[in-house]
Amino acid sequence: MKFDFSTKVFEKEKITLAGTEEYIVRGGRHLFSKLPAAFDGIKQIGVIGWGSQGPAQAQNLRDSLKDAGSDIPVVVGLRENSSSWAKAEAAGFSAADGTLKEMMAVIAESDLVILLISDAAQAELYPAVFRAMKSGATLGLSHGFLLGHLKSKGEYFPNDLNVIGVCPKGMGPSVRRLYEQGRTTDGAGINTSFAVEQDIDGKATDYAIAWSIALGAPFTFMTSLEMEYRSDIYGERGILLGAVHGIVESLYRRYVEDQGMNPKDAFNNTVESITGPISATISHKGIKAVYEGLSGEDKKTFEVAYSAAYRPAKEILQEIYDEVASGNEIRSVILAGERMKEYPFDTIDNTPMWQVGKEVRAARKPDATPLNAFTAGVYIATMIAQIDVLRAGGHVYSEIVNESVIEAVDSLNPYMHARGVSYMVDNCSTTARLGSRKWAPRFDYLLMQLAYPAVDAGTAADPKRIKEFVEHPVHDAVGTLLAYRPSVDISVA
Amino acid sequence: MKFDFSTKVFEKEKITLAGTEEYIVRGGRHLFSKLPAAFDGIKQIGVIGWGSQGPAQAQNLRDSLKDAGSDIPVVVGLRENSSSWAKAEAAGFSAADGTLKEMMAVIAESDLVILLISDAAQAELYPAVFRAMKSGATLGLSHGFLLGHLKSKGEYFPNDLNVIGVCPKGMGPSVRRLYEQGRTTDGAGINTSFAVEQDIDGKATDYAIAWSIALGAPFTFMTSLEMEYRSDIYGERGILLGAVHGIVESLYRRYVEDQGMNPKDAFNNTVESITGPISATISHKGIKAVYEGLSGEDKKTFEVAYSAAYRPAKEILQEIYDEVASGNEIRSVILAGERMKEYPFDTIDNTPMWQVGKEVRAARKPDATPLNAFTAGVYIATMIAQIDVLRAGGHVYSEIVNESVIEAVDSLNPYMHARGVSYMVDNCSTTARLGSRKWAPRFDYLLMQLAYPAVDAGTAADPKRIKEFVEHPVHDAVGTLLAYRPSVDISVA
Repeated sequence: MKFDFSTKVFEKEKITLAGTEEYIVRGGRHLFSKLPAAFDGIKQIGVIGWGSQGPAQAQNLRDSLKDAGSDIPVVVGLRENSSSWAKAEAAGFSAADGTLKEMMAVIAESDLVILLISDAAQAELYPAVFRAMKSGATLGLSHGFLLGHLKSKGEYFPNDLNVIGVCPKGMGPSVRRLYEQGRTTDGAGINTSFAVEQDIDGKATDYAIAWSIALGAPFTFMTSLEMEYRSDIYGERGILLGAVHGIVESLYRRYVEDQGMNPKDAFNNTVESITGPISATISHKGIKAVYEGLSGEDKKTFEVAYSAAYRPAKEILQEIYDEVASGNEIRSVILAGERMKEYPFDTIDNTPMWQVGKEVRAARKPDATPLNAFTAGVYIATMIAQIDVLRAGGHVYSEIVNESVIEAVDSLNPYMHARGVSYMVDNCSTTARLGSRKWAPRFDYLLMQLAYPAVDAGTAADPKRIKEFVEHPVHDAVGTLLAYRPSVDISVA
Repeated sequence: MKFDFSTKVFEKEKITLAGTEEYIVRGGRHLFSKLPAAFDGIKQIGVIGWGSQGPAQAQNLRDSLKDAGSDIPVVVGLRENSSSWAKAEAAGFSAADGTLKEMMAVIAESDLVILLISDAAQAELYPAVFRAMKSGATLGLSHGFLLGHLKSKGEYFPNDLNVIGVCPKGMGPSVRRLYEQGRTTDGAGINTSFAVEQDIDGKATDYAIAWSIALGAPFTFMTSLEMEYRSDIYGERGILLGAVHGIVESLYRRYVEDQGMNPKDAFNNTVESITGPISATISHKGIKAVYEGLSGEDKKTFEVAYSAAYRPAKEILQEIYDEVASGNEIRSVILAGERMKEYPFDTIDNTPMWQVGKEVRAARKPDATPLNAFTAGVYIATMIAQIDVLRAGGHVYSEIVNESVIEAVDSLNPYMHARGVSYMVDNCSTTARLGSRKWAPRFDYLLMQLAYPAVDAGTAADPKRIKEFVEHPVHDAVGTLLAYRPSVDISVA
């Protein structure tokens, strides 16, 4: 799939990733002056919700428009009696000056409605939102979930609205923090993807790009809402959350139970190895650098582990992709939301392994964490399998690399490194948490049942599989995109 | 939900299970003489497919009709070039005498078409089957899967067909073996449920009961196709296959990794304990007898394990029920069927635990297997949770007890006892195998993450939970239904 677009206000730029061309827009504060022209026809922007993205986007938009000398107000919409009311006031929005109101009122009067309530709330409230919006207005989403939900019900957006998406490739707090850093550090900001789902007046593309620029995105690439929700929901069930959790559980058990390693060493050779040196190497030098940095027996060990793990990992990943693309996974999330009234989330890291993890993190010494070659082989095989499933699904490399590599090594693994798996999982969306809990055990079991017995039976590395890895086109795309990353660390300490 | 029916030919009988009334029909060879009257209007019965149920049902129907002096032919329909052609011939069906033909020809000319091809084949071929059938004919199913599939696609059966279900509560080989034993042993046979989904001529109920009687069912209870597929697909994902697998994996790991038990002892205290003395006790004396047979510390250990495991197990079980009832699970099975061309089933018991199991089974001594109280508490908590979810779903006790207790302790656990988990899983339908692989890891993780940490933290038994268990109405229903079981062992040695 290839996306192209035309913009009347900004400059699009062609980049080449692994031999494929994509069009992007580079951001920067110098472009804020173009926002009034790009937002032509928008007299008010409503930002609905105050969860993860809401506070960041409302403040960034407001500050960028002010910087541009625009008088377009950014109005925050919340439920009556929302506990977030005070937080929005603390961020400078107020009922007194008309920038903080009941959400349906904001939806009814805004020309651009940026809907940042939770997936579950969107699924519940969309009929009321659609009814409330002005004909000719623009609906903005930061995730394609609602499109997936509508499709699973055989419905669609009203045909008198623009529908656009701007999807930051980082959590809300990072979107705000890097925007603030961007005032003094050129290039700081969170990359985004944008999508134009429905364009009724020829203005939707510039609205979307302006929204992204105003958020502070240094790099904006194009996707569709369909591809966005597929890759996003899939990615968090895969290497970003579900797969990495299942991998470390299965490896830790293998090292302790079957190989007699002591628990602390096993934790160091699994979780710590991935969230520490493996992630750091990928972040600085790319995926292949992990393999190329090994030698002798370690290199052979990587090859054996990679060869054994690739296919079982891909089997689960393909299942996840199919479940997401078919609408099943979205229906499951909705059903789970209803069950959560009776079965709220419990913490998942009270097991012996994660208790050991607390001790290991407390005693951590700089540069003392091993880069375990077997662990690296399993982890990287899963990452490459995830990439291959996305390639087969027709996703562009910007999206593939962001959802499979950059978000893992720059954002989520550092979270797990700092606080453990539960902290990581608990700081994602409900949709991501549910997916991680659902799929992690599947990766664990299939690696345990298929990959490790093959290794223990003496199955050699597969030279063809290793050659495919070494020559994989994604390495070029990762190298290019790593260079486009923000100039500051996006992970939260 | 309560089912009632009227039969012109057979006698219905009212039984009371846990204070609720159900109508059933008792079977027996003395009723074969009534088959011609009950099959009034049926000039040919076609049995389509030769998998697990096909051989058993085709032969039992043929032999029963012959016994009754009826000249209604039973004609087997297979795909051209089916590898089963020779097997059907060996069972006495032949092209020469017109009792073995290409399946679409049989479907077109039969008045009762018993469709026993796999779930995946039904999902693929149903439009052709519906087109081929004569108007006014009767479609017979042994599983409600096709109804679930139609519902998930927003479709339904043609309105000019009777649609009935007769669903043996055992695998095909047992349906045939016990029928043969029934020639000499009164009461041998596999119980069935029956359903009348669509009755266009007032004859559907007697057709269904006659079919069940002809199969040799000693006990036939009523359900609907909807309730049948819900309870069947749910049950095999729960305690029958998925849950028992996940439970023993998690307990084995707990005993070895966290408590230092040696692997053989751990296998004896998990798998062997469930498939041996726990199953035998339930089969002979009911669920509560396991608890009442314990004393002192063992009784307390059971209570603690039961209290900690019930809620996590129920959380997963409710999720499974919701996924099945919503149609998601059926859609997943169809998607998985398509993936299986690239990712065929692999064996799942090459892990260290199941390798230990082979040694333990080989060295097994009679009556030497321990009844581990902790294991019993977890297993029985899951069984009761499964029952409670079905009760909330409105299922009748005959169905609940068959899908949650009798099939477990009399059929599937004995399989696992004889050959291990993979053998058990591999001898079920593709739908069951897929479900077991999907859900076993979820039970494992939730017990590991929630139940065992609670026990290790010293959480006491919950007296209310134990009281509910002891006073549970299902014990009365189990007691009654155990007495209705066939008089011979239904498990395969």
